[in-house]
Amino acid sequence: NAMAEIKVKAGGRIMVDGEFGRGINGSKGFEPSSSAQETDFDSQLDRARLNLSGTVSPDWGFKIEYDFASGSASAKDIYLAYKGFKPASVLIGNFKEPFGLEELTSSKYMTFMDRTIVNGQFAPSRNVGAALHTGGSNYSATVGMFGKGTSKGQDPKYSVAGRVTFAPIATKTTAVHLGAAVNYIDVHSSSLYTSSGAITTGDTNNKEPAGYHIGNPNFVDLDKSTIGGLEAAAVFGPASIQGEYMKAFNDYLDPTHNSDPSGWYVQASFFPTGESRNYVANKGAFGRIKTSGNAVELAARYGVLKLDQAGQDDVKQTTLGANWYATSHLRFMANYEMLDYGNNTGVPESDDNFFMARAQVDW
Amino acid sequence: NAMAEIKVKAGGRIMVDGEFGRGINGSKGFEPSSSAQETDFDSQLDRARLNLSGTVSPDWGFKIEYDFASGSASAKDIYLAYKGFKPASVLIGNFKEPFGLEELTSSKYMTFMDRTIVNGQFAPSRNVGAALHTGGSNYSATVGMFGKGTSKGQDPKYSVAGRVTFAPIATKTTAVHLGAAVNYIDVHSSSLYTSSGAITTGDTNNKEPAGYHIGNPNFVDLDKSTIGGLEAAAVFGPASIQGEYMKAFNDYLDPTHNSDPSGWYVQASFFPTGESRNYVANKGAFGRIKTSGNAVELAARYGVLKLDQAGQDDVKQTTLGANWYATSHLRFMANYEMLDYGNNTGVPESDDNFFMARAQVDW
Amino acid sequence: NAMAEIKVKAGGRIMVDGEFGRGINGSKGFEPSSSAQETDFDSQLDRARLNLSGTVSPDWGFKIEYDFASGSASAKDIYLAYKGFKPASVLIGNFKEPFGLEELTSSKYMTFMDRTIVNGQFAPSRNVGAALHTGGSNYSATVGMFGKGTSKGQDPKYSVAGRVTFAPIATKTTAVHLGAAVNYIDVHSSSLYTSSGAITTGDTNNKEPAGYHIGNPNFVDLDKSTIGGLEAAAVFGPASIQGEYMKAFNDYLDPTHNSDPSGWYVQASFFPTGESRNYVANKGAFGRIKTSGNAVELAARYGVLKLDQAGQDDVKQTTLGANWYATSHLRFMANYEMLDYGNNTGVPESDDNFFMARAQVDW
Repeated sequence: NAMAEIKVKAGGRIMVDGEFGRGINGSKGFEPSSSAQETDFDSQLDRARLNLSGTVSPDWGFKIEYDFASGSASAKDIYLAYKGFKPASVLIGNFKEPFGLEELTSSKYMTFMDRTIVNGQFAPSRNVGAALHTGGSNYSATVGMFGKGTSKGQDPKYSVAGRVTFAPIATKTTAVHLGAAVNYIDVHSSSLYTSSGAITTGDTNNKEPAGYHIGNPNFVDLDKSTIGGLEAAAVFGPASIQGEYMKAFNDYLDPTHNSDPSGWYVQASFFPTGESRNYVANKGAFGRIKTSGNAVELAARYGVLKLDQAGQDDVKQTTLGANWYATSHLRFMANYEMLDYGNNTGVPESDDNFFMARAQVDW
Repeated sequence: NAMAEIKVKAGGRIMVDGEFGRGINGSKGFEPSSSAQETDFDSQLDRARLNLSGTVSPDWGFKIEYDFASGSASAKDIYLAYKGFKPASVLIGNFKEPFGLEELTSSKYMTFMDRTIVNGQFAPSRNVGAALHTGGSNYSATVGMFGKGTSKGQDPKYSVAGRVTFAPIATKTTAVHLGAAVNYIDVHSSSLYTSSGAITTGDTNNKEPAGYHIGNPNFVDLDKSTIGGLEAAAVFGPASIQGEYMKAFNDYLDPTHNSDPSGWYVQASFFPTGESRNYVANKGAFGRIKTSGNAVELAARYGVLKLDQAGQDDVKQTTLGANWYATSHLRFMANYEMLDYGNNTGVPESDDNFFMARAQVDW
Repeated sequence: NAMAEIKVKAGGRIMVDGEFGRGINGSKGFEPSSSAQETDFDSQLDRARLNLSGTVSPDWGFKIEYDFASGSASAKDIYLAYKGFKPASVLIGNFKEPFGLEELTSSKYMTFMDRTIVNGQFAPSRNVGAALHTGGSNYSATVGMFGKGTSKGQDPKYSVAGRVTFAPIATKTTAVHLGAAVNYIDVHSSSLYTSSGAITTGDTNNKEPAGYHIGNPNFVDLDKSTIGGLEAAAVFGPASIQGEYMKAFNDYLDPTHNSDPSGWYVQASFFPTGESRNYVANKGAFGRIKTSGNAVELAARYGVLKLDQAGQDDVKQTTLGANWYATSHLRFMANYEMLDYGNNTGVPESDDNFFMARAQVDW
């Protein structure tokens, strides 16, 4: 009967962070904005989530996940899923718009403790909408339409996003990934801007330089934005490389305003213990590292965010990382991050260097 | 042993809404109050809940459910239940006061996407208290006492509520329901009023015309209120009708103030696919639609809220609805709603018409 | 395989309180601060929690628990645990600093409805950090380091805490407990003070006299604090006694400031029905009462908080309690509490007497 078909599974993740560093802004919320120049140690819960997922019939599934680390309920994946015409599926609810290899790789499986500033500026992450997804052994394709913002009381417009990925090689230990995505956002509403004139971007965990979002603080009249993204990655046994390029083509209400920011990053990782990053071709993203225990990963990345406005320097991000996977579900991470803000308006200092460590479990 | 008796079940519900319409107020939070006259599309999570329920001994059970759709934790059913002297049971905690057929029918099983404005004005919904309930194959009776408000820091008084229902006919596909309830509220505290002078009513999901609650905005000195409710419903195979009448008898601190608002609604529904609404006699409410899949329901309702104050017109609500039950636990709903606010103080426009759709799953 | 090792259990607790009394302050949030002198009845959810706990490998476990009773997400035990070198274990995350017999005894097993004002002033409760714990049949030892505060945006320093306990006798019905703990807090930051100049203490459920915390309201410049605690308890069949002494040695930024508050309490309990309090030696704390049902416990306690500042009287707390354990997981509690604030600055009345009752379930 109907009840017999219902299956429910309880999951979640915990990420406990410690940080030591000298920051110019409230990076990760470790520092309050008033103590801008302090060198300090701190600890915090970065992510602490509960979820239920399951199926209510052979064709219909669901997932609901919240992150409560901030003290309020931050909606993560909350959706109904129809899987009746395989390999295609339909999602309805709150989930990630199809944009960005780094964004679409779960924080459980990210190589570094945080996504790049480039991803934070351009990838829309989760919104309430509907999407059609399909994928196979060497490709994935997703298209969706989304309202902007999950909270009641907002006045959002909408966005349309599409992404295709292709993997000429996709075995357990070898993969080549190519991807392209586009995201059209009808903004036209000051309520979508933050107080600094920036669009609310997806990854609030990201160490973004405050005030340097798509909507430049000097231009608070963003009307429409079309964001394009190109992705490439390769896995050869224990080694992997990955890179993305993203650019926003912005229309401002004031026709004299003109700023089309862009950014890119490249990263490389290597497992001295022999494991491989786990490419999931039908999603076009990376999944859980398969290990019997004690896997070690070393990684480095470099990214640049081009603000495309007179008098504003590029922002550069360099990260070194080392991960120890005690099991497939429990890992420790250490990152050293250097942010170079250049000579930009309103930024009191040009560098932000800090060391971070994380203990992470998911189930 | 004791541990062996503990049974726990994880449940929840997700309702994802889309809306298109022209509203005069912040109906359902889709529109910010400042953009009162906009015609707009939006999407949101209307309800997204997690619960645990179970038993800790043969006689004692519990349930705890929160809705996090708003970004904070909204307490739903959170109680201890004693079932040791059947058919009676005792509930202690946060749960619905016994008042209102529409209110006591779960949002999972409501015919329309939202309860009527009449229910929203008069039914108290959940508060922290204790109740004694009993019921059988053709009746139910509940009496309880409640403090007002679950949040710490409030200064509530209390209410006493009682409800009896009788079902001269109650089979799987045929039912006649009669019910009466009374709710006495000792208010006497400005902290129970909202800024508009209204009592906080239960169904915040309801599209209530802001400012027209029991405590009339012109009379912010409500002292005591006795609210009565009469219910009737009938199910004849695929067809059903339902109606309620509610009236508040208000005492104001200023003896010259006098306003006893009232309201009523009627609704009808029909399953062209042959299913029946599921009347649960020992609760005096409707339960889950039993279907092997692909049930279709058509419905209409009309309600009137009488403000009973000089210069204020009645508020009228007309709703048309169609539901598709993909399974017993997953349905899609579409509603067209017309709200006629009449010529009332502070309301900038007399109509509010919108189309809404919902995808809903529960487990 | 790895997935097969994952075990997850869903738990939680509900505490529903009613209170009647005359309070001078917002004790337990029952009274808003503006209605300071009211005698009133109220009901509320005092604790309402969900948790998941389990293991992801033979050596690694986790727990995540939130309390949502206040409407926001209050982080409780959220940690990773390593149990690979028994009997020692390592905890990383948000959990209670090792300090205080009463604090480290779960609210599920407390003898009274709330911990003492002494505990509330000195015990740090939970913070984000790491600790090493070990214990055996007659001892426990824990040491840890913690940042202060789990919320993002705070600017905490850190604390180091250590606790050892010894039980010369520890059988199922007889136990003698001795314990000592020390907690060094580097405060040096006004953001850790509340508006009244007080350190945020752990048990927000405690009926603390507002404004009389470690950081005296007249001295808002606390720099460093070293807090010591001594514990003793004994169980002889159905009878038990317990007491603690705590003292803070404070350094203020202004060297002319000097206040080293201290406090102590003693309590006794007796089960006329013959059960015993359940001492858990390897944790140095009390655990679940083992009963086949219908256990009754009578208890009394007295505590004094010495503010150690000119012109401020001691605060005295007297509590009488009776508990009925319907099962090991479901109990009802009744407390009568008398708080004597003495003649202290800013306190409008010298007494606070109230009767409270609780229905509690955990699973």
